[in-house]
Amino acid sequence: MSAADLVAAADGLARFTTEIFVRAGLSNAHALTVADALVWANLRGVDSHGVMRVPRYVELIEVGDLNPNPAITVKTETPAAVLIDADRAAGPVAMTFGMTAAVRKARALGVGLALVRGTTHTAALGYYTLAAARENMAALALAGSTPNMAYHGARAAGVSTSPISIAVPGGEHAPILFDMGTGIVSIGKLMRAKHTGQSISDGWALDQSGNPTTDPQAAHIPMPLGGPKGSGLSLMIECIASVLAANPLLSESLEGTAVGHRHRQNGLALAIDIARFVDIGTFRDEIDRLVKAIKRLPRDPSVDEILVPGERGDRVFETRTRDGIPIPRATYEALRRVAEKLGVTMFPTSER
Amino acid sequence: MSAADLVAAADGLARFTTEIFVRAGLSNAHALTVADALVWANLRGVDSHGVMRVPRYVELIEVGDLNPNPAITVKTETPAAVLIDADRAAGPVAMTFGMTAAVRKARALGVGLALVRGTTHTAALGYYTLAAARENMAALALAGSTPNMAYHGARAAGVSTSPISIAVPGGEHAPILFDMGTGIVSIGKLMRAKHTGQSISDGWALDQSGNPTTDPQAAHIPMPLGGPKGSGLSLMIECIASVLAANPLLSESLEGTAVGHRHRQNGLALAIDIARFVDIGTFRDEIDRLVKAIKRLPRDPSVDEILVPGERGDRVFETRTRDGIPIPRATYEALRRVAEKLGVTMFPTSER
Repeated sequence: MSAADLVAAADGLARFTTEIFVRAGLSNAHALTVADALVWANLRGVDSHGVMRVPRYVELIEVGDLNPNPAITVKTETPAAVLIDADRAAGPVAMTFGMTAAVRKARALGVGLALVRGTTHTAALGYYTLAAARENMAALALAGSTPNMAYHGARAAGVSTSPISIAVPGGEHAPILFDMGTGIVSIGKLMRAKHTGQSISDGWALDQSGNPTTDPQAAHIPMPLGGPKGSGLSLMIECIASVLAANPLLSESLEGTAVGHRHRQNGLALAIDIARFVDIGTFRDEIDRLVKAIKRLPRDPSVDEILVPGERGDRVFETRTRDGIPIPRATYEALRRVAEKLGVTMFPTSER
Repeated sequence: MSAADLVAAADGLARFTTEIFVRAGLSNAHALTVADALVWANLRGVDSHGVMRVPRYVELIEVGDLNPNPAITVKTETPAAVLIDADRAAGPVAMTFGMTAAVRKARALGVGLALVRGTTHTAALGYYTLAAARENMAALALAGSTPNMAYHGARAAGVSTSPISIAVPGGEHAPILFDMGTGIVSIGKLMRAKHTGQSISDGWALDQSGNPTTDPQAAHIPMPLGGPKGSGLSLMIECIASVLAANPLLSESLEGTAVGHRHRQNGLALAIDIARFVDIGTFRDEIDRLVKAIKRLPRDPSVDEILVPGERGDRVFETRTRDGIPIPRATYEALRRVAEKLGVTMFPTSER
């Protein structure tokens, strides 16, 4: 955090964000969900998926890609699975709907699957898997999106930095919360490098013309994690989250069709009811035991501590809940412009 | 393939492998399944998961870790999910049982989950997901194993190179078959480097004492794919394939308990019935369309061709089905020793 950063309390930021989305046409309930998902990401230190997305979401409403009043409908349903048409709902609204359905079905039959078709930016997937883990589920979420990452062997964006999140509850330990993109580096990290001017590693990115670059100003297309592994995994996410839901994204974009130019995402939520397979107390104890065993491994001197997935975010969450969320000046200004347009009062900040 | 390699036809190799496992105590049906899974891997060029595993499997039977006559039982069952106790069955037997159950459940309810507890080396996971894809399923398989890969930030094996496989059917194109380990490099590739003496890349491996090395003779513990991404994904596979099935592997090994020293694996199979969510013809056509769009991307001059997951294996399969499977002399000799011990005639080979 630079000296010029502002700091905002989570509740004020959430009230502000809710108000923005209510003015932009969302119901109060939907606006609350979107605000909660975005501020949650900020609280955990995932600022790339936090309130800095607000101006973009508002823009998506203005151009008609995000439907503020979606008619979310169930297209196919069995006692264990459901295909939901999100009608271009805000991602947090659609994905919360999907994960809730998956959890309900898992409660009944041990496993529940929700395919969420036609949503918009799904925000941080960990928001949904963590919610399910808090209900004693093992949960997995995927999101398919339009091309923004190089496909292995190609010099252009062919797939998306599609994320995968998995979460399980712990006992004394917090839930283990894993959330990774399929790129070697995130779009957010490339954007930060552009702002700071720090050069980026060889093999991280292509420029807009598809040439490898280490120039942060030119870097545009992240490379896949581990070459064919990351781009292959991302392609499979398109197959099972998008093609399976009858809403292909990559083909449409790569062929340059009219719909291919629009912002569109699909999601998949899977929940497994732990208690159906193992005593829940035993499971929680075993997760704690596993965390302890991992943290006791001989430490690489280049790191301060061995961490399990989600642990760093848990700590940032604690600090930011207490001390507030740093808001870069550029983010603040972008939010102020949206707030002015919609007639919303800015959230309170302090300087530090 | 070196000039000294032998070549074997798939059918002779499969008959030999079946005979070995029958003599080692498996039923004819189980021996056929194990042989088919191993020779399938050879045919696709995944020799690390082919018949070179036969001596190790026989050893696992001798020491009591692989049960040749398992009583595979269903511990928990719902119409959508099942927990199977494999009773230390050979991996291909247990995983085939699991994926078959998952497919049956998916046929009924759209999604089917099988947790396979207490199996042994699961061989190539693509064998099971491909089988499901051929039945018009989107399929996913995971396998949990004992620690053999560095955990991010640790200088010791803390997790396993746990694989994840996903497959979907194509139309004119073959099924897309993805199968990746969570390591930056596979154990098999480290073993090959040891044989060839080629030095390995910086950041690929630790030696037995946990120090980073580029010496192929010293390299022992592969590093995780993308640091915290690969080791985090592997840890989550342990959580949902092992801890959820009440058969934790990593904690037991890392704590050095008696059972922790034994060879044990767990698997997870998930099947989704495509036709329940989208017309199967449309799905197949859309997969073909996606493959075409990916292969039309501007090519990186450093590769000959842009490939989709499974495509390379499909081609090797074609070649090896026609021309035979190359068997390195060392593999042949190891198989000969096992064959002698069990009184099995060697498979026919030619030289080339």
